[in-house]
Amino acid sequence: MSPPKDLIDIFAEKERFLILSHLTPDGDAFGSSVALKFLLEQFNKKADIYSELPLPAQYRFLPGAEYIKNINSLSVEDFDVLVLVDCNNPSRVSYNGGIVEKVKKFSGSKVIIDHHIEDNDSIDFRCIKWIDPEKAATAVMIYYLFRTMGGKITPEIATNLYTAIIVDTGNFQFDNTTDEVLFIASELVRAGANPSYIYQQCFESWSTERFKLFVKMLNSVEIISSLAVACINKDDFDETSTAEHDTERFVEFLRILKNVNISALFREIEKNSFKVSLRSKGDFDVSVVARQFGGGGHKNAAGYRITASFEEARRRLFEKLKDTGML
Amino acid sequence: MSPPKDLIDIFAEKERFLILSHLTPDGDAFGSSVALKFLLEQFNKKADIYSELPLPAQYRFLPGAEYIKNINSLSVEDFDVLVLVDCNNPSRVSYNGGIVEKVKKFSGSKVIIDHHIEDNDSIDFRCIKWIDPEKAATAVMIYYLFRTMGGKITPEIATNLYTAIIVDTGNFQFDNTTDEVLFIASELVRAGANPSYIYQQCFESWSTERFKLFVKMLNSVEIISSLAVACINKDDFDETSTAEHDTERFVEFLRILKNVNISALFREIEKNSFKVSLRSKGDFDVSVVARQFGGGGHKNAAGYRITASFEEARRRLFEKLKDTGML
Repeated sequence: MSPPKDLIDIFAEKERFLILSHLTPDGDAFGSSVALKFLLEQFNKKADIYSELPLPAQYRFLPGAEYIKNINSLSVEDFDVLVLVDCNNPSRVSYNGGIVEKVKKFSGSKVIIDHHIEDNDSIDFRCIKWIDPEKAATAVMIYYLFRTMGGKITPEIATNLYTAIIVDTGNFQFDNTTDEVLFIASELVRAGANPSYIYQQCFESWSTERFKLFVKMLNSVEIISSLAVACINKDDFDETSTAEHDTERFVEFLRILKNVNISALFREIEKNSFKVSLRSKGDFDVSVVARQFGGGGHKNAAGYRITASFEEARRRLFEKLKDTGML
Repeated sequence: MSPPKDLIDIFAEKERFLILSHLTPDGDAFGSSVALKFLLEQFNKKADIYSELPLPAQYRFLPGAEYIKNINSLSVEDFDVLVLVDCNNPSRVSYNGGIVEKVKKFSGSKVIIDHHIEDNDSIDFRCIKWIDPEKAATAVMIYYLFRTMGGKITPEIATNLYTAIIVDTGNFQFDNTTDEVLFIASELVRAGANPSYIYQQCFESWSTERFKLFVKMLNSVEIISSLAVACINKDDFDETSTAEHDTERFVEFLRILKNVNISALFREIEKNSFKVSLRSKGDFDVSVVARQFGGGGHKNAAGYRITASFEEARRRLFEKLKDTGML
């Protein structure tokens, strides 16, 4: 799998690269961005990463985390090339409409490197698009870019790419874990990435408060046929001094139940207003249900918002699941 | 890393192979045993696996699970070669002293293939010993045996070896996860192993009862400085209709806490009689403490038994941890 030739040409010719990603930077967005920055710098280019939000705490160990800049300080005029990494929609780089406009109207060369399916409203964004939804992570594509351009994968770069891969494959547990992913992971370890250390940073760095919230969630679990339902209400957040972002991966934990095919986590964001995350195994398509509530997502991971009491919100979910034959 | 030549010679010359492992068959013991059986059969040998205990439920999906035989029906006279797999101490193949004696006195050729450090009392067991504690799993050694002997890794064999590897590396999270392990895993996936399916079978197959026991354990967790202590008492087992084997991996979960370096799980096996599992991160050597209570283990995973009330048992653990500077 080789990067397109016109992309390689631009990377060879131009000098000043602006790297942007989606506004909630995760392991793949950031690991891939930093690895790309380091690659370009090996060829004596200038490359800067700007982000709307700071990195979540669990990724601050990454070599290069200190180089991320606040997107509000961005002057797009300082760059020849805009590279969107792990994102194919320029509207998603910032909450700030002014910045989004400047990015959309960027007059230099524009490149997208991403493994997500192309958003409908990014089809009009004309640029060099290297989009491959078959790849488990954008980091896999960046790895091939290193190989094509002859970049050296240092231990710092290997650590960023390995992190990106384990975050997007759930540490090699999701069905995007292929022989290619494992082979590249082995090459990255050979180049200096430390699997157990990186795993610990990404997945074993819960605060005591987050742990207490998790226990509260587990205590709320109801198992009804092949459905598991959990609820975290506002009091739970308040009593444990936690916030919504502390619930990352909570709903995924319910996959551990052999006979559960669908899990739902209700999080009360404001009084009687819930964010609902749905997860499923195999062929159960929870995005169908999420869309009926005005939400969205993929077959096995979807979500929506609902304003109602928990009992009412749960009742309506059960109804939809029954209507679609999933319960 | 090549198998010893005398081992290869025996595998080429002899005809009837008896494969045994330690009496609590885990993923590596069984996956490696079945893969070896299938390898020998490719060379038209007879190869049989005998086990003291049936396979735990989560491994029954493994191709070849149906071939495992009960060790009480074993006639050692029917075999030319005894192969101990993932085990280097013949005393550990059965609870039945008569069988252990027959195995120890086996008059044919004897071979050990194992990645555990050699037990003191197995040093006298004279045979061809291929023991490599540097390897993450015995399955890694069996993989090299396939390569050396020119066996074909079918999808069934790949599934067994891949399972063995993820069980012994905690799905690539422990510090035995090397570039070699990931490379072999990628080869096994290329040969037909399905990572997400195997992961689901091994790690996401909890019964509702086991889940309820887990929630009880989490509710019992106390965090004291960098120590997490949990207790499952007899009532917890009784109320959830579970048994000791349902607690596999429970204590490991506590690693998720960033500031916890040592975790202890007390399981009440009989009234006021506890099995205690200790786990640690990094340089904290919990085997020192376990040995002081007459137990044993490794630096990061050790255990012991104690007869006392929970309060008393916990107090004595704290005392030892303080004495050794770990608390």
